[in-house]
Amino acid sequence: MRTLAQDIAKNIGGEITIKGWLHKKRLLGGLNFISLRDRSGLVQILVEKGEEVEKLRGLQIGTILSVQGNVIEDDRAPGGAELHDPTITVMVEVTDEPPIEIDKPISHKSEHLDTLFDNRPISLRNIHEQAIFKTKDIVCQITRNYFKEHNFTEIHTPKLLAEATEGGAETFTLDYFGKQATLAQSAQFYKQMMVGVFERVFEIGSTYRAEPSATTRHMSEFITIDCEMGFINFDELQNRLGDLIITIVNESWEQCEPHFKSWNVTKAQLPDSAEDIPRITIDEIHEMYFKATKTDYRGEDDTHPEEERWICEWTKKNKGSDAVFVTGWSAKNKTFKFYHKADTANPDFAERADLLFRGVEIVTLSMRQHEYKKLVSQLSAMGGNPDAAGYAAYLSAFKYGMPPHGGFGLGLERLVEKLFKLNNVKEASLFPRDINRLAP
Amino acid sequence: MRTLAQDIAKNIGGEITIKGWLHKKRLLGGLNFISLRDRSGLVQILVEKGEEVEKLRGLQIGTILSVQGNVIEDDRAPGGAELHDPTITVMVEVTDEPPIEIDKPISHKSEHLDTLFDNRPISLRNIHEQAIFKTKDIVCQITRNYFKEHNFTEIHTPKLLAEATEGGAETFTLDYFGKQATLAQSAQFYKQMMVGVFERVFEIGSTYRAEPSATTRHMSEFITIDCEMGFINFDELQNRLGDLIITIVNESWEQCEPHFKSWNVTKAQLPDSAEDIPRITIDEIHEMYFKATKTDYRGEDDTHPEEERWICEWTKKNKGSDAVFVTGWSAKNKTFKFYHKADTANPDFAERADLLFRGVEIVTLSMRQHEYKKLVSQLSAMGGNPDAAGYAAYLSAFKYGMPPHGGFGLGLERLVEKLFKLNNVKEASLFPRDINRLAP
Repeated sequence: MRTLAQDIAKNIGGEITIKGWLHKKRLLGGLNFISLRDRSGLVQILVEKGEEVEKLRGLQIGTILSVQGNVIEDDRAPGGAELHDPTITVMVEVTDEPPIEIDKPISHKSEHLDTLFDNRPISLRNIHEQAIFKTKDIVCQITRNYFKEHNFTEIHTPKLLAEATEGGAETFTLDYFGKQATLAQSAQFYKQMMVGVFERVFEIGSTYRAEPSATTRHMSEFITIDCEMGFINFDELQNRLGDLIITIVNESWEQCEPHFKSWNVTKAQLPDSAEDIPRITIDEIHEMYFKATKTDYRGEDDTHPEEERWICEWTKKNKGSDAVFVTGWSAKNKTFKFYHKADTANPDFAERADLLFRGVEIVTLSMRQHEYKKLVSQLSAMGGNPDAAGYAAYLSAFKYGMPPHGGFGLGLERLVEKLFKLNNVKEASLFPRDINRLAP
Repeated sequence: MRTLAQDIAKNIGGEITIKGWLHKKRLLGGLNFISLRDRSGLVQILVEKGEEVEKLRGLQIGTILSVQGNVIEDDRAPGGAELHDPTITVMVEVTDEPPIEIDKPISHKSEHLDTLFDNRPISLRNIHEQAIFKTKDIVCQITRNYFKEHNFTEIHTPKLLAEATEGGAETFTLDYFGKQATLAQSAQFYKQMMVGVFERVFEIGSTYRAEPSATTRHMSEFITIDCEMGFINFDELQNRLGDLIITIVNESWEQCEPHFKSWNVTKAQLPDSAEDIPRITIDEIHEMYFKATKTDYRGEDDTHPEEERWICEWTKKNKGSDAVFVTGWSAKNKTFKFYHKADTANPDFAERADLLFRGVEIVTLSMRQHEYKKLVSQLSAMGGNPDAAGYAAYLSAFKYGMPPHGGFGLGLERLVEKLFKLNNVKEASLFPRDINRLAP
């Protein structure tokens, strides 16, 4: 029988066997101890017998051990107990010293990220590093539970597509049995088609962008939390997203507080109700930013990254919210996509909002044009060909009846990055991909 | 306030509003009724007033309606109630007749599959068709819950890889910023590396195979349920998989019985305990099949599809199990991959098992070679170059300590196909991909 590190305090006074990786070794002569790592955490082991100390001398960090010992209460030890008088058995030998130290936090300074990523299989053995990904796992769980509670159906949409119907410049192309295929830049068309079937759908899946430059905000492969729902209006859609974000922040904090604390991050501040998340127009942000900094972006179509950081700080300070909806998107410029919907009461504006969180855009949300004829004419007006094969199935969903609907795509890594206040989205990816990195 | 179809019986005697798609229309003069579809199912609506009947005349199937009416108990109606005396409002007009009928089951005969798939956005509006995908959604949920209950961490591994380190012939390649990249044929290396970090990991993600032929068993893009766990032996690994399959079959039947019954399928028969799932060697199967049919595959490395069907029928009849483990894989022929592990007590054989379910292989499972030096020598012996960049990170995980481990990959669509006793794996994919199909 094997006991996990997290359960040793339940066995105080007893003899147990634990199995795992030799994580740390301190042979000081008088006081010799090691820590052993398993999937649940660390155990501290006091090694007293001379022959056991001798056994340890030649062992490298990473050696797989089975350790039998007595559990002694000790408030200073992780988990409130440690093992004494161990008998140590080597299960798997390791002869080489690991390329990086794993028993203390690894530097995330931008100049050290390549070392971190190059050594991922080893650097992730660091408990501090794992905190990010154990939380990411929980965030996925919370998100799926949220969608299931609200009657969404989980779908799997194809990532191999015949044509890049959205955008095109940032698309990966490949040979598909002699034809050209592209990798999906989003689940946009497919999730909309599925509104016609299941009304409410979600997917947590891979997304591909051939981002031609290395930035702290972009990867060429990432995970998107996609959602789309029918019979909803713009306001309800924003509240749905706001409610999801509040749920993720609250529940991840409940379940992962020690992980966040190990990174010295505080819980994001959000109102109790999604309706109270501030909604500010692009023009208002330009105006406020100009007044505050004299930098003039007034009249521009989109917000600038420094404005996004600034408005988040302002909103946190003045409205008690780390999140803010940017609204007031024009329906008359290039930010308006053919599948977007203009506000019926105010057709100069799109029913679109971006959600900024801790200084960065993590979600784009919009109502979609659900009326077939208007959709076709918006597509044509923007230079698309409604008769092209790539649009056939998509448009057919509308031709044969689509309700008012909208949805959003939330970048999972960006969200996790911001929950941990990291500086680069790649730090929230197990194996990040960008223009310079395709391995490991 | 909108009431869902599934909730109307809670409102007997009351007046409600429902919203959805016009699903069926019967205007017979004396008895006029329609059904309306929403995400929860169908509602039957008896239309009596002349002006409302007039409104309906021109309406196409698929029209989005809002219907206010009185809920009347009726045991014959779906849900035990129907709407009477409705006021019908058209929310979204539809002018064209849908290309396929959606109010009765659509043919899944092989010659009709193209029609089914070409019209996916519409054909999936069929309730009968939806049953497959609502069950697939539940199967994913059951599977994740199972893994979470057993302490697995969910991971997301990259699908864009530098090299095709496994196989190669069936790999899609693409241009990645001037370099060549491939699409992941499996999460094999990555999930193993993550055993060194989290011990137990799972992923439900996309898998790509450039399958050069169109069969009923293969797709070029599909979803794999991947799992890998450390500190486990071959027998425990088979029991873990068996337990998962038993859990999926039992729980999906509990939650989706009406979906299965709408396809006239019975619940798969499985023993109560995973330990009682039959385990039969390849040689035994060849021998039994020869005795039964006089077709002689004795001495061959692998089982034939007809043997797989035959042994499943035999096992069901004689052992009461729709599932059977095929064991006795040689460690000395091409079925043995470099990362497989031979049985220590009997090195001619691999610690590998395939799980057959209702006549088809749905899982390959194996213990992996976890000792660095042996792994390197197995790789070299099979013509791989341990110094190639593609192996660097993978091998480093072993160099710095990996416990005994094993895992499996379970094809989600094959599993769902078999739960519904479909004839083609593509029927269990929303948007199937094969050599001939890249759209919609």
